[in-house]
Amino acid sequence: MADLPFFLRESSGTQEEIMKATYCALCEYGYSELTIQRIGEHFDKSKSLLYHHYENKDSLLLEFLQFILDEFQHSIPDNKEQRADERLNIILDRLHADTLSEEQQNFVRAMVELRAQAAHDDRYRSHFTHSDQQFHALLVDIIQDGIKENIFQRVEPERVAAFLLTCTNSAMLQHATSDNDYITHSREEIDIYINTRLMKNSSPQ
Amino acid sequence: MADLPFFLRESSGTQEEIMKATYCALCEYGYSELTIQRIGEHFDKSKSLLYHHYENKDSLLLEFLQFILDEFQHSIPDNKEQRADERLNIILDRLHADTLSEEQQNFVRAMVELRAQAAHDDRYRSHFTHSDQQFHALLVDIIQDGIKENIFQRVEPERVAAFLLTCTNSAMLQHATSDNDYITHSREEIDIYINTRLMKNSSPQ
Repeated sequence: MADLPFFLRESSGTQEEIMKATYCALCEYGYSELTIQRIGEHFDKSKSLLYHHYENKDSLLLEFLQFILDEFQHSIPDNKEQRADERLNIILDRLHADTLSEEQQNFVRAMVELRAQAAHDDRYRSHFTHSDQQFHALLVDIIQDGIKENIFQRVEPERVAAFLLTCTNSAMLQHATSDNDYITHSREEIDIYINTRLMKNSSPQ
Repeated sequence: MADLPFFLRESSGTQEEIMKATYCALCEYGYSELTIQRIGEHFDKSKSLLYHHYENKDSLLLEFLQFILDEFQHSIPDNKEQRADERLNIILDRLHADTLSEEQQNFVRAMVELRAQAAHDDRYRSHFTHSDQQFHALLVDIIQDGIKENIFQRVEPERVAAFLLTCTNSAMLQHATSDNDYITHSREEIDIYINTRLMKNSSPQ
């Protein structure tokens, strides 16, 4: 795997090896064709470890989702000295990646399949409710800082954050489930929205 | 079913009865637990008709998706005499429903599960690529009219339409897969975006 995401590049220890195997198997098979056995194909240690620790593929996948949420959060530079608009752009670029390698595309597709499990499985629903809340809080924090820094207009941070979160989640859905290239346009329009809705000294488009 | 959607209220004929049974079974079981047998439980005529016409549940569901796309499109009033901003609002309100009955919520959840099939199944991918293109074209048409009517600013219609489509798809995803109420805020921010980005004489927020 030449193209491992940042959170798996320095994996060490059994748990991280399991997470890496899960990532690779998800990219290869997607959710519906995934089995613990197929995750085992990407795991160098004893397969019985997997069967011993996880009741079924969903228990393993829920742990995987929590793992990548934690890793994503740790990876965000907590640089309060950076301007709020720059911090916001870094987050949106990460969430809204529109130039993905084939493997990354497969991973986004699998993530959309996992998110769809939340439509009928309360454990997934609880995870995505929580993970959206984490991202929402992060965006609210940046918007509040931008208002304090006098860079952003006096908007309601919760409201603007909810909208930005919804847009980025949806861009992922769009990318994973259709062949249309609407994602680039979406990102451009988010920039315009930020410029006119948030920035105090916005330039005309 | 006291709460059938508009496109099934006056169902008559075998095909429409099948579509109605599919709708009811989808609301009751969601995608993953759905079987042709369970659709048959909601179908008054001979169950063998279902097995005869459809190879598996996915063939039936793909026909169902095409059916509701057609019905949705026919239901949109083609009233070119109405102002473009009013026409836009009607479409966005329909797609962005934020007060749903329990049955409608179940249907939205099932639709998200169906959309997620597009992550690994080319038949679903082809359907949602096509259906997004239909909605995109509809939005482009309204935005172009608004520019001609001198109500909207001279934006790139394709770009703004792509963004609006992403926003509305996203409302559905959020609603179906988390317990957070971000959808109301999102709709408010879409209105602000339309007001500042599209409308020529926008009022200050």
